[in-house]
Amino acid sequence: MFESEFKIRVRYSETDQMGFVYYGNYAQYYEVARVEALRSIGASYKELEKSGIMMPVVQMNICFKKPAHYDDELIIKTKISKKPDVKMQFYYEIYCDDNLLNTAETILVFVDKNTMRPCHCPEWFLDLFSGFNLLT
Amino acid sequence: MFESEFKIRVRYSETDQMGFVYYGNYAQYYEVARVEALRSIGASYKELEKSGIMMPVVQMNICFKKPAHYDDELIIKTKISKKPDVKMQFYYEIYCDDNLLNTAETILVFVDKNTMRPCHCPEWFLDLFSGFNLLT
Amino acid sequence: MFESEFKIRVRYSETDQMGFVYYGNYAQYYEVARVEALRSIGASYKELEKSGIMMPVVQMNICFKKPAHYDDELIIKTKISKKPDVKMQFYYEIYCDDNLLNTAETILVFVDKNTMRPCHCPEWFLDLFSGFNLLT
Amino acid sequence: MFESEFKIRVRYSETDQMGFVYYGNYAQYYEVARVEALRSIGASYKELEKSGIMMPVVQMNICFKKPAHYDDELIIKTKISKKPDVKMQFYYEIYCDDNLLNTAETILVFVDKNTMRPCHCPEWFLDLFSGFNLLT
Repeated sequence: MFESEFKIRVRYSETDQMGFVYYGNYAQYYEVARVEALRSIGASYKELEKSGIMMPVVQMNICFKKPAHYDDELIIKTKISKKPDVKMQFYYEIYCDDNLLNTAETILVFVDKNTMRPCHCPEWFLDLFSGFNLLT
Repeated sequence: MFESEFKIRVRYSETDQMGFVYYGNYAQYYEVARVEALRSIGASYKELEKSGIMMPVVQMNICFKKPAHYDDELIIKTKISKKPDVKMQFYYEIYCDDNLLNTAETILVFVDKNTMRPCHCPEWFLDLFSGFNLLT
Repeated sequence: MFESEFKIRVRYSETDQMGFVYYGNYAQYYEVARVEALRSIGASYKELEKSGIMMPVVQMNICFKKPAHYDDELIIKTKISKKPDVKMQFYYEIYCDDNLLNTAETILVFVDKNTMRPCHCPEWFLDLFSGFNLLT
Repeated sequence: MFESEFKIRVRYSETDQMGFVYYGNYAQYYEVARVEALRSIGASYKELEKSGIMMPVVQMNICFKKPAHYDDELIIKTKISKKPDVKMQFYYEIYCDDNLLNTAETILVFVDKNTMRPCHCPEWFLDLFSGFNLLT
């Protein structure tokens, strides 16, 4: 299991007239969280894309429990339990002051930018996870 | 079963550097689609909120199959199969030129704005669906 | 002078906790308005980009007078008074029920995607405006 | 003159298909920058709103010079030169690696949430700027 934490402060633009973070904006938080999770072990998503591989999201499931509010400092816990192959799975939990606000899962695929077809996770990328005892 | 269709044209702001619609922006499309689905049978979400009931999303599942591109004219099919009670379920399919791009499901709850607690769907709202043979 | 009108309905996602449209979201409305203004005379911004020319915004000035609210149906008037050359100027007025909500101006430049340098407006694009008596 | 700096990393969601940050998203960056500028001297915009005063933007001017890219770490310099009264003016400069990307100015007004009319800047808020030699 690989785990990572990242803090994000809620922007005014991210709220809606309910006074909560708009439900669609959490996808951005998960994006930032997984990119920072990868950065924490030395993987740059930006560099991955430059090398010709991109990772579109093919599945997202979110369970909203409590709302986030303007200016809240959120903690996003990102978990990876399975070794990336053609796909890569991320789990997220967003907390505010020890309250669990929502949980989510996203599945991304590795795609070759030239052929626009799914491809295997590059070796150098896979190697970064070698110390984390992930499921195959 | 109740079904409704709505067209949305992809804005430049909704694309990302992959050249596709950013995965988080579909939540906005589903929002517009369900609001227009309700409007088509005479229910105004705006009026519902003014009457003291709001409908936050508690669950969203999306399955992305193909990307949408800038300026695409998307058709969003919205389906409701179950009678609303404390919750309300919407299914969505987004098409571009007969290609199914993604499918999604959202579950919303009726919440009393004063107490901030879940409540039953108002009678007048439920009555609008009386002709559609929904599951209980 | 060339003038065009386009209607946009305010999405829930575009509001903020003030209960108004977030000030940053009007840039999207202006984008849609100018793209539809161009479409109305047969110019597709999408095709322009495909042909190798893009039009980034280099200047935007907005004067906010009154707020827009959720579900409002806004009318955006787009005006072009000067012939496009290396730059192109658009003026906008957003109305709701005859109330002027805000006015704006954007200046865009024609940029060659290969060289990433400013270039002249293509002839075919310029020709579309020949009937509108624009200032040079 | 009061000056403040804040760093923001560009999110994937903030790019568009040009591969740059969408021009409308800078309004969010300026928002974050001015809120953090206020926080740095002990003023919480969130608390200001809770106390019954909000600050809608009435004017925004942006001059875009160079684009920002995905994953760039931007530095936003926020400047206040005039004492807030009914209005408050902020200037912004966004840099990436010492390159000036854009400059902007926003004017905000203090509005009483009950009456929805412009009001004077509260004394406690004004006092926070007493050490900065602002113009009147």
